Amino acid sequence: MKPYAFGVDIGGTTIKMGFFDTEGKFLDKWEITTRTENNGEKVLPDIARSIKKKLKENELTLDDLEGVGIGVPGPVLSGGIVDQCVNLGWGVIDVRKELSSLLDGVYVTVGNDANVAALGEQWNGGGKGHDNVVMVTLGTGVGGGIIIGGKILAGSHGAAGEIGHMKVRDNETAVCGCGKKGCLEQYGSATGVVRLAHLALDANPAAETPLRGLDPLTAKDVFDYAKTGDEFSLSVIDTVGKMLGEAIAHITCVVDPDVIVIGGGVSRAGQILLDAVEKYYKPAAFHASRNTDFKLAVLGNDAGMYGAVRMILNK
Amino acid sequence: MKPYAFGVDIGGTTIKMGFFDTEGKFLDKWEITTRTENNGEKVLPDIARSIKKKLKENELTLDDLEGVGIGVPGPVLSGGIVDQCVNLGWGVIDVRKELSSLLDGVYVTVGNDANVAALGEQWNGGGKGHDNVVMVTLGTGVGGGIIIGGKILAGSHGAAGEIGHMKVRDNETAVCGCGKKGCLEQYGSATGVVRLAHLALDANPAAETPLRGLDPLTAKDVFDYAKTGDEFSLSVIDTVGKMLGEAIAHITCVVDPDVIVIGGGVSRAGQILLDAVEKYYKPAAFHASRNTDFKLAVLGNDAGMYGAVRMILNK
Repeated sequence: MKPYAFGVDIGGTTIKMGFFDTEGKFLDKWEITTRTENNGEKVLPDIARSIKKKLKENELTLDDLEGVGIGVPGPVLSGGIVDQCVNLGWGVIDVRKELSSLLDGVYVTVGNDANVAALGEQWNGGGKGHDNVVMVTLGTGVGGGIIIGGKILAGSHGAAGEIGHMKVRDNETAVCGCGKKGCLEQYGSATGVVRLAHLALDANPAAETPLRGLDPLTAKDVFDYAKTGDEFSLSVIDTVGKMLGEAIAHITCVVDPDVIVIGGGVSRAGQILLDAVEKYYKPAAFHASRNTDFKLAVLGNDAGMYGAVRMILNK
Repeated sequence: MKPYAFGVDIGGTTIKMGFFDTEGKFLDKWEITTRTENNGEKVLPDIARSIKKKLKENELTLDDLEGVGIGVPGPVLSGGIVDQCVNLGWGVIDVRKELSSLLDGVYVTVGNDANVAALGEQWNGGGKGHDNVVMVTLGTGVGGGIIIGGKILAGSHGAAGEIGHMKVRDNETAVCGCGKKGCLEQYGSATGVVRLAHLALDANPAAETPLRGLDPLTAKDVFDYAKTGDEFSLSVIDTVGKMLGEAIAHITCVVDPDVIVIGGGVSRAGQILLDAVEKYYKPAAFHASRNTDFKLAVLGNDAGMYGAVRMILNK
């Protein structure tokens, strides 16, 4: 194995670049801007240029590279074909081939960003020491990643781990971003927490709570007031916990992981979130999986960069 | 690889024995009785004796064996430790080690029977030609098996594929065999179909249907009358389809398989079952997995024997 590798996490506004040796030691990280104009045609050339520059700074060449791992915000089919990244303006792109040709044939591999972040957390974060990890990412939406035997489970259509779109409620009238009604994302994401709080405020006009009148009302507000003992906020968090806990019980009936890692912005609420989720997880889970550990993610925004390079180190 | 292998499927009343060459060609099959007395202490010696006898008939010895694969009706932990097979009277048993020592050190591997049957269907049945298969077995209970990359996903506690115990209904008052309320098994198994039919008959005393007065009323009756157009039976099957279809949509959000194989006694109902399941699967599924194929299992009771030997051929 050659001595160095890069892990790259492409987001809609910035691209996170990580430089590692192939022992897995982190060496350096930095960010570049995601230039989405002209259908994102500059994204891969910008990454290639940034990699070459970093190598030159370190008096290295492309020959010193084992490979470059990339996480992208969209579905990745087998063979590394990316099938539309709306946030980047990309249509169908063969990222492996295009980036490799910009880097004189260096090995490139690509994964979906949520899956790659899950691999990062499994390797070096909340799931460290475990081969089989389910990661649940609670951000603007609800994402997920399934790691089996230390590898990403991508799925037949790049849709493994799309747990935000499990239909968990029958009588929902609001429409999810995916077009369905009753998706987990409508309750368990930051947006979902805010939505549930507003619904509860409207449904209980007489209820007194410090949440009333907040503009904007954020998911963090709901968790913060719940921590101070506000019953109204606690009740919203209880609903969030039920939706997430029972959905995670479904997931463990399917893959029975060693550990469940909860990440994303909402997870910064910490123990109060885990407690609400586990309250509903345990009675819904199959008995063999009832005591599976829940952990908080620890790598934050670096998870994707770690997971991306791990795809190279563990190929 | 040595030239021969056995696939063995241990059930509560009979043990199905399969003799194969290591090219995967089926050579012979037969059954022996499962002797469960004295905590099932005769089960493994009976299997060893039967294998030796078959070898002798064919003028072969244990040296000609690549290995013996075993499916058991209970959870299998990593390393092949079986953790209680209630139907056999077994406690915690190291099946790999015990059977191997009865066969002069021949390689033995062991899997849960539902998982092993799923592997059989993936290799040579409804999932043939696909590496990633979810099998749903609708028998007395609801079982399942998850095959990823042509291998069984066993899970951290031997509980991967325990999809019969996904909690799919909130307001259930009846208790599942596992102790929870609202498990998929309470609606999608043969027992579940009968239970739903009786509940509907009791709830609608004026409804006229040929199901009324049948004693016993079987799942096959419900499907048979549904096929003749009986609205009451069709409505029961519709509920069964909803519970199964939406649960399978959860599963595909997690593992996104190439194909879903439906087996077990209830699956003999055929297309009417698949239609009822797909009616609710498609609107609940994530769009990328919406058109994933449903297939009926084809190996019937031989699936376990095929899957058991496959663990040897594909180790």
